[in-house]
Amino acid sequence: MNMKLKNRQTVLFTGDSITDCGRAHPVGIRAGLGEGYVALVDSLLATFYPERLIRILNTGISGNRVVDLESRWRKDVLDLKPDWLSVMIGINDVWRQFDSALDPNQVTVERYEEMYRKLLAQARPEIKGLVLMTPYFIEINRDDPMRAKMDEYSDVVRRLSTEFDAVFVDTQCAFDEFLRHRPTQSLCGDRVHPNRTGHMIIARAFLSAVGFNWNRASKKTEVTR
Amino acid sequence: MNMKLKNRQTVLFTGDSITDCGRAHPVGIRAGLGEGYVALVDSLLATFYPERLIRILNTGISGNRVVDLESRWRKDVLDLKPDWLSVMIGINDVWRQFDSALDPNQVTVERYEEMYRKLLAQARPEIKGLVLMTPYFIEINRDDPMRAKMDEYSDVVRRLSTEFDAVFVDTQCAFDEFLRHRPTQSLCGDRVHPNRTGHMIIARAFLSAVGFNWNRASKKTEVTR
Amino acid sequence: MNMKLKNRQTVLFTGDSITDCGRAHPVGIRAGLGEGYVALVDSLLATFYPERLIRILNTGISGNRVVDLESRWRKDVLDLKPDWLSVMIGINDVWRQFDSALDPNQVTVERYEEMYRKLLAQARPEIKGLVLMTPYFIEINRDDPMRAKMDEYSDVVRRLSTEFDAVFVDTQCAFDEFLRHRPTQSLCGDRVHPNRTGHMIIARAFLSAVGFNWNRASKKTEVTR
Amino acid sequence: MNMKLKNRQTVLFTGDSITDCGRAHPVGIRAGLGEGYVALVDSLLATFYPERLIRILNTGISGNRVVDLESRWRKDVLDLKPDWLSVMIGINDVWRQFDSALDPNQVTVERYEEMYRKLLAQARPEIKGLVLMTPYFIEINRDDPMRAKMDEYSDVVRRLSTEFDAVFVDTQCAFDEFLRHRPTQSLCGDRVHPNRTGHMIIARAFLSAVGFNWNRASKKTEVTR
Amino acid sequence: MNMKLKNRQTVLFTGDSITDCGRAHPVGIRAGLGEGYVALVDSLLATFYPERLIRILNTGISGNRVVDLESRWRKDVLDLKPDWLSVMIGINDVWRQFDSALDPNQVTVERYEEMYRKLLAQARPEIKGLVLMTPYFIEINRDDPMRAKMDEYSDVVRRLSTEFDAVFVDTQCAFDEFLRHRPTQSLCGDRVHPNRTGHMIIARAFLSAVGFNWNRASKKTEVTR
Amino acid sequence: MNMKLKNRQTVLFTGDSITDCGRAHPVGIRAGLGEGYVALVDSLLATFYPERLIRILNTGISGNRVVDLESRWRKDVLDLKPDWLSVMIGINDVWRQFDSALDPNQVTVERYEEMYRKLLAQARPEIKGLVLMTPYFIEINRDDPMRAKMDEYSDVVRRLSTEFDAVFVDTQCAFDEFLRHRPTQSLCGDRVHPNRTGHMIIARAFLSAVGFNWNRASKKTEVTR
Amino acid sequence: MNMKLKNRQTVLFTGDSITDCGRAHPVGIRAGLGEGYVALVDSLLATFYPERLIRILNTGISGNRVVDLESRWRKDVLDLKPDWLSVMIGINDVWRQFDSALDPNQVTVERYEEMYRKLLAQARPEIKGLVLMTPYFIEINRDDPMRAKMDEYSDVVRRLSTEFDAVFVDTQCAFDEFLRHRPTQSLCGDRVHPNRTGHMIIARAFLSAVGFNWNRASKKTEVTR
Amino acid sequence: MNMKLKNRQTVLFTGDSITDCGRAHPVGIRAGLGEGYVALVDSLLATFYPERLIRILNTGISGNRVVDLESRWRKDVLDLKPDWLSVMIGINDVWRQFDSALDPNQVTVERYEEMYRKLLAQARPEIKGLVLMTPYFIEINRDDPMRAKMDEYSDVVRRLSTEFDAVFVDTQCAFDEFLRHRPTQSLCGDRVHPNRTGHMIIARAFLSAVGFNWNRASKKTEVTR
Repeated sequence: MNMKLKNRQTVLFTGDSITDCGRAHPVGIRAGLGEGYVALVDSLLATFYPERLIRILNTGISGNRVVDLESRWRKDVLDLKPDWLSVMIGINDVWRQFDSALDPNQVTVERYEEMYRKLLAQARPEIKGLVLMTPYFIEINRDDPMRAKMDEYSDVVRRLSTEFDAVFVDTQCAFDEFLRHRPTQSLCGDRVHPNRTGHMIIARAFLSAVGFNWNRASKKTEVTR
Repeated sequence: MNMKLKNRQTVLFTGDSITDCGRAHPVGIRAGLGEGYVALVDSLLATFYPERLIRILNTGISGNRVVDLESRWRKDVLDLKPDWLSVMIGINDVWRQFDSALDPNQVTVERYEEMYRKLLAQARPEIKGLVLMTPYFIEINRDDPMRAKMDEYSDVVRRLSTEFDAVFVDTQCAFDEFLRHRPTQSLCGDRVHPNRTGHMIIARAFLSAVGFNWNRASKKTEVTR
Repeated sequence: MNMKLKNRQTVLFTGDSITDCGRAHPVGIRAGLGEGYVALVDSLLATFYPERLIRILNTGISGNRVVDLESRWRKDVLDLKPDWLSVMIGINDVWRQFDSALDPNQVTVERYEEMYRKLLAQARPEIKGLVLMTPYFIEINRDDPMRAKMDEYSDVVRRLSTEFDAVFVDTQCAFDEFLRHRPTQSLCGDRVHPNRTGHMIIARAFLSAVGFNWNRASKKTEVTR
Repeated sequence: MNMKLKNRQTVLFTGDSITDCGRAHPVGIRAGLGEGYVALVDSLLATFYPERLIRILNTGISGNRVVDLESRWRKDVLDLKPDWLSVMIGINDVWRQFDSALDPNQVTVERYEEMYRKLLAQARPEIKGLVLMTPYFIEINRDDPMRAKMDEYSDVVRRLSTEFDAVFVDTQCAFDEFLRHRPTQSLCGDRVHPNRTGHMIIARAFLSAVGFNWNRASKKTEVTR
Repeated sequence: MNMKLKNRQTVLFTGDSITDCGRAHPVGIRAGLGEGYVALVDSLLATFYPERLIRILNTGISGNRVVDLESRWRKDVLDLKPDWLSVMIGINDVWRQFDSALDPNQVTVERYEEMYRKLLAQARPEIKGLVLMTPYFIEINRDDPMRAKMDEYSDVVRRLSTEFDAVFVDTQCAFDEFLRHRPTQSLCGDRVHPNRTGHMIIARAFLSAVGFNWNRASKKTEVTR
Repeated sequence: MNMKLKNRQTVLFTGDSITDCGRAHPVGIRAGLGEGYVALVDSLLATFYPERLIRILNTGISGNRVVDLESRWRKDVLDLKPDWLSVMIGINDVWRQFDSALDPNQVTVERYEEMYRKLLAQARPEIKGLVLMTPYFIEINRDDPMRAKMDEYSDVVRRLSTEFDAVFVDTQCAFDEFLRHRPTQSLCGDRVHPNRTGHMIIARAFLSAVGFNWNRASKKTEVTR
Repeated sequence: MNMKLKNRQTVLFTGDSITDCGRAHPVGIRAGLGEGYVALVDSLLATFYPERLIRILNTGISGNRVVDLESRWRKDVLDLKPDWLSVMIGINDVWRQFDSALDPNQVTVERYEEMYRKLLAQARPEIKGLVLMTPYFIEINRDDPMRAKMDEYSDVVRRLSTEFDAVFVDTQCAFDEFLRHRPTQSLCGDRVHPNRTGHMIIARAFLSAVGFNWNRASKKTEVTR
Repeated sequence: MNMKLKNRQTVLFTGDSITDCGRAHPVGIRAGLGEGYVALVDSLLATFYPERLIRILNTGISGNRVVDLESRWRKDVLDLKPDWLSVMIGINDVWRQFDSALDPNQVTVERYEEMYRKLLAQARPEIKGLVLMTPYFIEINRDDPMRAKMDEYSDVVRRLSTEFDAVFVDTQCAFDEFLRHRPTQSLCGDRVHPNRTGHMIIARAFLSAVGFNWNRASKKTEVTR
């Protein structure tokens, strides 16, 4: 598979705190991409593909749910006119139903699917490529109530990927693979906000999904000179 | 080539500010590995080889020259009893001759080689594996006075690698490769302390040199589930 | 059952971060009891039993395992000569095996029991009353690896309670009761450090275990004047 | 008496610094309820009645007098549409007459009663239940000038409670009960802003007044498992 | 009466927080006299008696009781060799019996008198003049428990003044005079730490007691030039 | 002479940094009067005349010249409707001609007199009493260029005092009196911003000018009880 | 050559971070001139020509390119009506093409010349004298890509100097002179933001270009008195 | 006259706050020379004499008097083995007699001369060159008490210069020259700690005294290229 991100293209990442990670405002760029998977994707692209100039933008905002994306979709997505758009949303839509069950305003899975579809329908005609990343809960027990609920939202993302011809990134699956070997506590405390290794797992899942060639050129570096 | 770092082994990194990068004291471990190439190596190992538990330690100190390593070699290297030792030293030995030419106490290349050899001779019998990384100057013009001087020190490292049966990591070469495509200003201002991409270049050079298989398992992540 | 804590008695609490909660040093007292269950116990005692002057001390230290208690048992427990001693220890003994599996120095359940018994044997003759509180993991799924491991340590505490004639406080059970109604996310993110409600659950379990009469006098307050 | 606060109801607390206690803005909720009696009421409700989901809101503001409540009654009370409203106001109305006697704008007891009645008349038809808490001065000598004045304001609150069919909470009486056993200095310095024990006294008075069953379930916790 | 403090004399003030008020360490002098009555005494002396150079020292320490003075009497009083010594101690000796009744180590009035006498007996032969200031409680009701207790300690100070030929400053009486006109709340919240007016009351009482001529020279200032 | 400031009167002080001294905004009152002569005047009035309730306001602003007073005369003087108005202005009008001679916008003595007169003409009919304080330079050598210039501005103030029936306070004269005994360095470094003693000199000059009886009641305090 | 800056003239400096150096806002003046060459020029003028009062203004802003100057030319240059205008701009116009090659909005040398000419044409008729300073790159190798590019922009400045009858200051040449003796690392890390010596080099180049007589009066200072 | 400071020589500056100016500890060097005349001397030397590598050290300490120099003469002067030693001391010896006349420990001019001579006698044999700078008071009126006293101390420095074959720098004279044209307020507030221009005046006086050629090379910079 060829690497889908081409020279001189712009890739915009948006979503919640996993995407945000302390990025600069109004738009995260260069040193202002934050400390999460977006920054790692940027560095890995530059390291393995120095000849391709790919511009990364970040408009994730901590705590966002799909309803928050809607209110800023124009300013933080469409107006920036990216070639590629990558979205990861849904973790807070689920989490609020568990840590703030008393709050009346909750985003059910039906409302999530409806709003998410509306946003994508609006954006798809204006971009060259779309990447949809599943939300996740770093818990290997699929019967855990919050994991089970999160899987319903991930299923929505899988369906929308097909519907909108998107590259699908199964971040939940990437974490499950890791959890077969090590406990969730080695990645984070709250099963949501991972350490650097957790963000590397997401970055790797993203890059592999867009056809990143991890093997290129690495031999040269050792033997040249 | 097989990946040389084995399950349950400990790898100790030491050196100057490039290694330090804000690591915890007295010994950097887990979340205290700093923000540089050492932390990236740790995350990449955990991501690609979750089934191998490899313990990373960091005792780099900003501003160190080989003379500073000597004074703390017992406490910060030998006493920690690592399986693998990775050293990157020499940038400040050269830099002080340029930014502080008036300081009387300078480390000439002869003194550098002599002291470095003494340290390695002391450590080699006590460790399973050794990695020596060249110092570097992120300047592609080999006639630049500081680059030319730095190359002399890198040559010492290459010789010592052969002499002590070490894995040799040519970080200067890795940066040169990158500089064929992009200007030094895209990595850093002072040609010494790089941004995250520069640290990723170092991490990749290190891992490729120890036989890291970048291609393993990445397909599974996409198709499983 | 009569309330066991008598007028003019001193009660010393020790343990890990759950007990510590920002208490003052060297010994937490009055306004320096921290923000956790110890402070709530103190306030509830003063509110419901104003005529009994009971002095509360706190020497918990965040991150402590039973091995850390041992090194400070003389200074932080015995020298303070309390009438009552209350201990909650073990959470970090288990947690370190999950979030830092690579660290070589772990406290197995056997080592935990042995060291804990030694400490209690030393203290028991010098105090009037002893309270042992179980460690806990705020996860209702008993098959979760960390919960299962924590239960082993709680079983040790139950055995030691019998052995040393202690009041036994089953904090895990108190949390399980709560989790039958609400999700773990309503108490905390990491399933260990709870919010104020979680500390109130611990405080209530402690007080009920020592015979606190929740019903006393409350009617008077409403009808007097 | 049955506990009056029912499942899924919202209870709004408003008032002065005793209610505020560092709550979040614009509306205190969950972790943003502050450090005072409101937060303790919230934790005690969740601990003793985990099966009843009761939502607590806090809009107290430090330094407020009844005249300040008037200016924000719409935004901070009515618009939030609580099922229950609990008000504690009056301490500053009295205090300003003592610490700032020179300030021309004072709230006499007549003005206090008039304005308070107007606010309650406006709110009563829109809420299911009302709780009125007396202001207080933590001084047992009823001849003390500020205590004597405060009692006049408390009498107003008692009358308004009858008039508006409110649950009446006599916080002054609760403190007097405590002061029969311990000096005012054990609760606070200025006889107004108490420590955690003082807030627990208020919380207990509030809960007892709304029919809280302190005895429920506490035995189970000890014997189960 | 002539002003007792003579040209080129040194006056040392010591005591608790009322004397301390943020003075410099190890010895408060000039701009480091703190913000309390000591600084006001210094400024009033310089303003009304510019031709007399009088050196003021301050070694008060917040929270001190007479037992604390004892441990530092050598270093903070005798070694500084003042011409005049002024002491105000006792407020905390009483206060701790009210706000920390549970603390076992209390200073009864008998212990207070005994220790205070011992200190004065040691100092009297080495100084030219002695000033003893009563402790106080800014509460006009003499039946208030803490005021009543404080009066017992003030009586000790009056007796010691006679015994050691000291200038006696009745600060309690000065505050009572003020409280006949204004409420205690106009001076402070906790009835102990007054605002600037309260410190001015103490400064005036001190100066009047040592024969300060408030009327001198003030007319000149208006008519000269 | 009787004390001119009567019970329940309001006295407003305005001017530059000597008046400001860190006062609260928008209007300094009670604890917000700053740390300068205004606060000392307030404390001395309350101490010597506790039966007269006199309200002090402060609207001084650091760096102000008479031109700055003009722009805020309505808001910071007239709208506050004081019984007495006290003004000290002119130091910066002179100082800017020395430390910033290059700045084109300077206030000559003619412009100073003209503007000052206009402000007073506007205020005089609306207040009961007026106090005018001279600017000053704490330098005893009348030939010093800045002192000589300052004296010209003080002469304007003297003339305006007569013209507007004001109490005249000659602060320069009060400082000169002090400087006959001690060097300027004992009051301040820049000969403008004095320490607490310098502010006490100003406060005393002000109070003596309005008929303050320094001798009243002071004997009572010593003999009562 | 006579010194061109005359008594009572105003000189305005504007440009990027080299000019800014932490100057005050909205306009840097006196102590607010920043820490760079502008402040040194000001101090050297006052030291060597104390009898000429020359007013220096600074409106440099870090990061500015010629496009940023355009948007504030009216407010930050023309409205301040200086006698002399000194401009140094262009470093960031070049740098952004190297450190942010991916940003679409770049200032080519043609655009630079066009905009710069437009600004000068607008300003020239309103000022008495104009000084144009070249941008620079502290790298002696003229083949370095960023140095080569910077030289193109310097050439534009030389042409514009002739065109607009400006004093031409060749800062690049001044640095080259220095670099013949010492390495670039002795002045700065990033080859753009120099230390105090680098700013002194710029200040000296500026002053020498406007006819500053470094030799005047210096002998007198030694022999007088 | 030839410039006396030669290539590869070390010059050590010591003294009080005028020399200190925020220098680094334990020894100020390079970027740690502080913000005063020492740093300006360093920058001017590097700018005008780039081919002479002259190493500047700074061990000034704020508030020092000659008695303080004595206690650290070994560590802060002799042990550093400079080629040249430059001392400016005496300002605080005089100032303390004015701002702290009450402090018993004062340094009279006789004691000053005696101690200063002793220090110089100890240092002279170990150094190649000595520079003595007078203390100063930025006040042109020689009858001002502090100026008159300072002149006595300056006379001592002049005598010692002859006695120890030192280069004599008359800083008081350099300031007097400036004060003939501008007021003291344009340099500083307290007549001791000047702004950057004042430090430039000192630096110029120092350099001119050691034979600095201000005219060298400056033409080249303009015409080259």
